[in-house]
Amino acid sequence: MQAVRRKPGPCAQWDSAETNFIREILDLVGDKWSVLIIGTLAEGPVRYSELADAIPGISQRMLTLTLKHLQRSGLVSRTAYAEVPPRVEYSLTGLGTSLLSTVLDLAAWSAGHHREIRSNQHAFDDAAIRTER
Amino acid sequence: MQAVRRKPGPCAQWDSAETNFIREILDLVGDKWSVLIIGTLAEGPVRYSELADAIPGISQRMLTLTLKHLQRSGLVSRTAYAEVPPRVEYSLTGLGTSLLSTVLDLAAWSAGHHREIRSNQHAFDDAAIRTER
Repeated sequence: MQAVRRKPGPCAQWDSAETNFIREILDLVGDKWSVLIIGTLAEGPVRYSELADAIPGISQRMLTLTLKHLQRSGLVSRTAYAEVPPRVEYSLTGLGTSLLSTVLDLAAWSAGHHREIRSNQHAFDDAAIRTER
Repeated sequence: MQAVRRKPGPCAQWDSAETNFIREILDLVGDKWSVLIIGTLAEGPVRYSELADAIPGISQRMLTLTLKHLQRSGLVSRTAYAEVPPRVEYSLTGLGTSLLSTVLDLAAWSAGHHREIRSNQHAFDDAAIRTER
């Protein structure tokens, strides 16, 4: 008879009724645009146009949508100043700030290992081609 | 004249030729299934069926696909044992292990803040409904 092994991994500790919702949160906070927006707000409030400018490749649609999701979940706050022209700034809330170091780690890891990952991908693809011959 | 402000955020430090690829890596490593698979491999090799069992909600398709992506990028290795029945185990490589603490932080943060986030989302939606009335 096999010994019953405790299930490995983070999900084993999760409240089973909440496991879907926790995965939804992971989807939001691990999303590349969320990571880059939160990382860009690290040093203080940033205007919409500055965010767009600081995150290459983000479309207006994805920037607006991701900001809305982050705002709805309470990670980012939006402040509109009644000026001419109107000024809107985004900043991290306390909750958003509590995620900041993790998100910066994830971005730094990705940037720090891109050469190694590209070379791994090439080696994997070459091996797959050799196997198919 | 406005002072020229340095662009904020992590992307400002990235090699501009590599910025698309770094975002692709972020897409892979921040993905919820990648996070949960890497987290589940934290304590050592795990069989395919145990992975499926330890990660509620993952489909066979997403498990197979995500394992392939992680393997291709060199974060996870796959070992097939010539036994009857055949046994296949997945484990973290050195590169995968270097991402482990960040990924576990992200999962723990998501699990630790789900009540607060749900309540923020409800408050946001209620406020939106009040505004529309």
